[in-house]
Amino acid sequence: MAAIETFENPHPHRDYVIRHVAPEFTSLCPKTAQPDFGTIEIEYVADRRCVELKSLKLYLQGFRNEGVFYEDVINRILDDLVAALQPRRMTVRGTFSPRGGMHSIVSAEYSPTGKG
Amino acid sequence: MAAIETFENPHPHRDYVIRHVAPEFTSLCPKTAQPDFGTIEIEYVADRRCVELKSLKLYLQGFRNEGVFYEDVINRILDDLVAALQPRRMTVRGTFSPRGGMHSIVSAEYSPTGKG
Amino acid sequence: MAAIETFENPHPHRDYVIRHVAPEFTSLCPKTAQPDFGTIEIEYVADRRCVELKSLKLYLQGFRNEGVFYEDVINRILDDLVAALQPRRMTVRGTFSPRGGMHSIVSAEYSPTGKG
Amino acid sequence: MAAIETFENPHPHRDYVIRHVAPEFTSLCPKTAQPDFGTIEIEYVADRRCVELKSLKLYLQGFRNEGVFYEDVINRILDDLVAALQPRRMTVRGTFSPRGGMHSIVSAEYSPTGKG
Amino acid sequence: MAAIETFENPHPHRDYVIRHVAPEFTSLCPKTAQPDFGTIEIEYVADRRCVELKSLKLYLQGFRNEGVFYEDVINRILDDLVAALQPRRMTVRGTFSPRGGMHSIVSAEYSPTGKG
Amino acid sequence: MAAIETFENPHPHRDYVIRHVAPEFTSLCPKTAQPDFGTIEIEYVADRRCVELKSLKLYLQGFRNEGVFYEDVINRILDDLVAALQPRRMTVRGTFSPRGGMHSIVSAEYSPTGKG
Amino acid sequence: MAAIETFENPHPHRDYVIRHVAPEFTSLCPKTAQPDFGTIEIEYVADRRCVELKSLKLYLQGFRNEGVFYEDVINRILDDLVAALQPRRMTVRGTFSPRGGMHSIVSAEYSPTGKG
Amino acid sequence: MAAIETFENPHPHRDYVIRHVAPEFTSLCPKTAQPDFGTIEIEYVADRRCVELKSLKLYLQGFRNEGVFYEDVINRILDDLVAALQPRRMTVRGTFSPRGGMHSIVSAEYSPTGKG
Amino acid sequence: MAAIETFENPHPHRDYVIRHVAPEFTSLCPKTAQPDFGTIEIEYVADRRCVELKSLKLYLQGFRNEGVFYEDVINRILDDLVAALQPRRMTVRGTFSPRGGMHSIVSAEYSPTGKG
Amino acid sequence: MAAIETFENPHPHRDYVIRHVAPEFTSLCPKTAQPDFGTIEIEYVADRRCVELKSLKLYLQGFRNEGVFYEDVINRILDDLVAALQPRRMTVRGTFSPRGGMHSIVSAEYSPTGKG
Repeated sequence: MAAIETFENPHPHRDYVIRHVAPEFTSLCPKTAQPDFGTIEIEYVADRRCVELKSLKLYLQGFRNEGVFYEDVINRILDDLVAALQPRRMTVRGTFSPRGGMHSIVSAEYSPTGKG
Repeated sequence: MAAIETFENPHPHRDYVIRHVAPEFTSLCPKTAQPDFGTIEIEYVADRRCVELKSLKLYLQGFRNEGVFYEDVINRILDDLVAALQPRRMTVRGTFSPRGGMHSIVSAEYSPTGKG
Repeated sequence: MAAIETFENPHPHRDYVIRHVAPEFTSLCPKTAQPDFGTIEIEYVADRRCVELKSLKLYLQGFRNEGVFYEDVINRILDDLVAALQPRRMTVRGTFSPRGGMHSIVSAEYSPTGKG
Repeated sequence: MAAIETFENPHPHRDYVIRHVAPEFTSLCPKTAQPDFGTIEIEYVADRRCVELKSLKLYLQGFRNEGVFYEDVINRILDDLVAALQPRRMTVRGTFSPRGGMHSIVSAEYSPTGKG
Repeated sequence: MAAIETFENPHPHRDYVIRHVAPEFTSLCPKTAQPDFGTIEIEYVADRRCVELKSLKLYLQGFRNEGVFYEDVINRILDDLVAALQPRRMTVRGTFSPRGGMHSIVSAEYSPTGKG
Repeated sequence: MAAIETFENPHPHRDYVIRHVAPEFTSLCPKTAQPDFGTIEIEYVADRRCVELKSLKLYLQGFRNEGVFYEDVINRILDDLVAALQPRRMTVRGTFSPRGGMHSIVSAEYSPTGKG
Repeated sequence: MAAIETFENPHPHRDYVIRHVAPEFTSLCPKTAQPDFGTIEIEYVADRRCVELKSLKLYLQGFRNEGVFYEDVINRILDDLVAALQPRRMTVRGTFSPRGGMHSIVSAEYSPTGKG
Repeated sequence: MAAIETFENPHPHRDYVIRHVAPEFTSLCPKTAQPDFGTIEIEYVADRRCVELKSLKLYLQGFRNEGVFYEDVINRILDDLVAALQPRRMTVRGTFSPRGGMHSIVSAEYSPTGKG
Repeated sequence: MAAIETFENPHPHRDYVIRHVAPEFTSLCPKTAQPDFGTIEIEYVADRRCVELKSLKLYLQGFRNEGVFYEDVINRILDDLVAALQPRRMTVRGTFSPRGGMHSIVSAEYSPTGKG
Repeated sequence: MAAIETFENPHPHRDYVIRHVAPEFTSLCPKTAQPDFGTIEIEYVADRRCVELKSLKLYLQGFRNEGVFYEDVINRILDDLVAALQPRRMTVRGTFSPRGGMHSIVSAEYSPTGKG
């Protein structure tokens, strides 16, 4: 995976919300090796660091040829971003294209004090 | 009905939300034997087990030639999935196509501590 | 008005939500005798009885040639359904087509312990 | 049926197009006596007479409690309007609400020189 | 302004919600005398009186050739309707068409016990 | 398959267009036996006979548990309806739900003088 | 009516299409004096002159307090713009808000050699 | 930047909500000098002063040729408007066009007593 | 590239239209090696052979890690499918996701007698 | 203006259609110096040269701080692209944001043998 780069939060005194929507996510199904497609939404309140957009794009592209389950990839993206940014809170959500006539949405949240 | 298969929740330490949307549900009306059509939405927080998608598809297809009321089928799907997954919480909702100029939505929730 | 028929709630131990949407409601304006059109939405938690769909359709058709105000018809439908079903809670909402460049929505709720 | 009233075309030297869209059409099914609902669209090029809007509304309301097939009602409306207006050309189209999981559209055209 | 007429609330024992949506509101800009356009939405819980629809339409038409700011007109409509109806609560909202590449929404609420 | 019933065209002197849209079509994939779903649209100009709606619904339901390719089913429906109705012209179109991330549309036309 | 101002067509050697859409048209009904609302669309190929936008806006505002039929106002706007611009061709279309549950569209065309 | 002009709140005794939506915001990327595009939404409860719309438009245009990050510009607009208006509360949100296949939304809130 | 498999056209006597829509196409930009995304639409009239859906999916997946221009890939897909199917006519269209604030659509047609 | 760069058409033997849609166009009004916004659509059949996308983006950005009328800018873009590409045919269309409650669309076509 490409490293997630960050920059200094220009307004750390305020709890404001940053949201990035990446509709061009693709990975492989770990069972069939067929491509999966989806939209990844990342929403967070920065503490000291903000995620740099180009490095986020490259990080997400790192899953392009990797086999991974929906339930797993969302939690892994959340873990990696929390480790890099130490945000005040963060949500990651994936909305995946239909497979077998069914589509799936998985979302996970992080807050320093919560169970997430 | 096909058996509901499960796999181990890869991130059991976190309360995250999984949602599957199945727009190709069909069953029969128990009174007229005419086909009914609808979309089934299943949303849950996994505890130890996640539902395997292909077995879920086959389970839902099991209603294809069965006569069942809207109010009944939603509660039965919820009961079967709760038995198989023991989730932290779960909601099942069905949105059915118009019959007699009227369409219907039925939804039921489960939580271990609640009345549902 | 046609009688509202009911059937036994197949899952009375659970508070689940049933919603019927009837977009083909029509009645007459009590002042001008001109037809009014609207969509009636009924949402409830059943206790012992559920409303039978065909009888609900016929009950609503009973307003076809009757003069009635928006504010009145929504409350009357609510009163009639509450009397027939004794639900745990119920909401009735009507969204009416434009008249004089203005359209109207009226909604009323019932709960056994509330003011409604 | 209410009479279709007309007024003098204010610009008879020009072939311009007039279209009225009536989304509140309702009649009865001749087989079941159940209400049908639909949208009637009327488009024409006036010759000497234009249709007066209020009388058109009342004329269409005349089908409210009459049993009539889709295929029949569209042709009858076309015949009645052609007789009243003698237009240079006219199309009548009805888009009807779903019955039995299927909805229907019927349209008919008139031109003085054509087969319609 | 035309007088706001009222009629007796047919179901005063119940807190139900009435909403009127008027998409054909127009007034004049007090600075440029150019027309402004917008949609006025009125939602209230009636106490003893309901607003009569035709008088409401005429009341709103009274602003057609009057110069008034967005912030002012919404509060004035709210004040006038509260005075006429003495409702249990009321909200008035205006959504105005773009001017200078920007559009505006203004909403105000009344409740007998609140600050509004 | 249920027989396609017809009734006499009430306006055979005019070439008018009848269209039925059936969004609840389902059949089986002949290779995998998995259910397919789609919308069937039928548009025709009647000659002496019109298709009766209820029999059309039952005819289409006849494919519910039959294995058939998209390309085949559309042509078969067209052949069966042409045989039953002898229309002046007819088009049948099927829009099928996604399979393997791809969805398909197949349409076929009949005219007495054309190649179709 | 405000005068329609024009400016010199900057590219008269080419037949290109100019379209202005004015969704804020309002006039009065000549029978009831009630306001009518609609969208006016003007499309033309300029010859030597183009219409200046601000003067077009003021010209259309000139109908604000005038009583005029739909069929008449569209033809009058077309006549006035043709007189001012002498275009190679022009279409004027009005789409009016519902009155009595019905809405209307009127459109008229001009071409130097045609009947329009 | 152009000065933000204000006018006296005409209804200071009431907490009502004013919202301005500016879909034509553009600035430059501070890293690449390429133009960015977005929609700025400003929602506030006025205390003594309201923002004058034309000056708000000119203020926002002041960013047209300035290089600024998304996270920074939203906080700066909020700071400038809070300084000029001293509102009871305010939210500023920017929804920016896709860059690198990803789009971003940033929103910040101010309340006198909160952390914002 | 995976081989394009075909099956025998079940209705070769009729010119009917087959359309496959593949919204999950992805390739690489040949200049930057960044992923591109798009929807490929294929429409054709079969002669003796129809394209088998699963092999079409695998063929399109063959571009996943290949660098190719929009203008080139559409023509190559058309050439490959024409070679495999010898259709009576065929159109291939690609609608690609925005890059640099601009999105692109490329479409190419084949007919045995035309220039395409 | 930035130079329009081109590359060799990879499939010159075929008349295929290339379309670029640029929703982030902005220029200045030549009368008021206020910003204008719009979407530019360019559709052409290449002969020997295709337009390079990045240079097209920079070329369109060249209007950012220039005063130009709608009617003029569309014709100028068409002239510049025709000069650079010598296409077999080309259309340029601009859809501009509302000004004074009215929005405008201007489109111009080029073909070597036509008047455009």
